[in-house]
Amino acid sequence: MIGSARLHHVAYVVADLDASLPLFVARYGLVPELREVMPDQGVEAIMLGAGGAGVELITPLDPDGAIARFLDKRGEGLHHVAFGVPDIDTALARLAHAGVELIDASARPGLGGHRVAFIHPRSGAGALTELVEVGPSPA
Amino acid sequence: MIGSARLHHVAYVVADLDASLPLFVARYGLVPELREVMPDQGVEAIMLGAGGAGVELITPLDPDGAIARFLDKRGEGLHHVAFGVPDIDTALARLAHAGVELIDASARPGLGGHRVAFIHPRSGAGALTELVEVGPSPA
Repeated sequence: MIGSARLHHVAYVVADLDASLPLFVARYGLVPELREVMPDQGVEAIMLGAGGAGVELITPLDPDGAIARFLDKRGEGLHHVAFGVPDIDTALARLAHAGVELIDASARPGLGGHRVAFIHPRSGAGALTELVEVGPSPA
Repeated sequence: MIGSARLHHVAYVVADLDASLPLFVARYGLVPELREVMPDQGVEAIMLGAGGAGVELITPLDPDGAIARFLDKRGEGLHHVAFGVPDIDTALARLAHAGVELIDASARPGLGGHRVAFIHPRSGAGALTELVEVGPSPA
């Protein structure tokens, strides 16, 4: 157990952030909360509020990066699911001990300044899985 | 605009519901809320509470159905994203008018007795998208 995880967001890879916004904003009424270029990842991303959990849109900036390869190979679509955890260091230590295949052995900076780490789809029911440190749940 | 949609759940196709539960329940601490055989769909599904939005696990019962074909072709993984809407009939009428490619032109019964309808991935940023009628938002 990694401590009361909650669905934090679901992420799509899209070819063009601005071209995708009308689907989520005008049609579904979601609210853009954050837009960031993440040079380390070679991507630009937007987080949209969608109730308790969010929707992230990611587009490649680096034509040789993992997100560009995903888009080339599979087209637009679902990329990963993220769960929020109170304490990511504890979560990662427990998962590693349980034999989970971690992509990131330790947390790194993610969108919005959160500490994040990815788990391999082989340890995530076939889905690339992100952990996002969200701090302790409100009492 | 189809009216204040919220992320309702994300759904995985898995080979075996019981074999997948430890990942989500023991490891992530999600809570099973509902388990149903859906003969019309040729599937059995579990909904897990994961904070405001849920995680659905779906496994095929019918070896010739769409979920069995998904599993054969792609293996376990993310299957669809669902948004909750206050009034699904209004939402579907507006989406059809906007040229959205609906798989279900009208709502049909889904997991937990909700009225649901699916939207083609071509109209969903590459993701199979479900609408779930959840009624008006609390004031």
